[in-house]
Amino acid sequence: MSKVEVYVTYKKSILDPQGQAITAATQKLGYAEIKDIRVGKYFEIEVDATAEESVSKVEEIAEKLLANPNMETYKVEVVD
Amino acid sequence: MSKVEVYVTYKKSILDPQGQAITAATQKLGYAEIKDIRVGKYFEIEVDATAEESVSKVEEIAEKLLANPNMETYKVEVVD
Repeated sequence: MSKVEVYVTYKKSILDPQGQAITAATQKLGYAEIKDIRVGKYFEIEVDATAEESVSKVEEIAEKLLANPNMETYKVEVVD
Repeated sequence: MSKVEVYVTYKKSILDPQGQAITAATQKLGYAEIKDIRVGKYFEIEVDATAEESVSKVEEIAEKLLANPNMETYKVEVVD
């Protein structure tokens, strides 16, 4: 059993209005040191396979189901 | 300038219907080795402060703004 994490974020070239809204909220709360917040999705996946097989399966799933490859990028990491 | 990442997930005791729906979708696509998917939120934050100050500021913000401490837990990590 492997545990794999996937992080999906908008590509740098894509505007992130939710992130901008949260950044603005931090400024209103007085956190002037916060310069930028970008929002993404995070998936914890349990896979019944070796670490190597898990990564290749999860990359397929990320491409098909978890991310929109036109607008988003993703990163896959094995935790254990 | 520090870069800090925040991961927000539902507590283990809280049902995650979106994660269950995605898990079911992977089964329909034929990925029988996928046992469980839990969904969370992911924030990349740029802070104009030292790593140590950044973590304490971001923990405050996570508590107030990014997570609902009744239902969610969060994890803060300095990237650089």
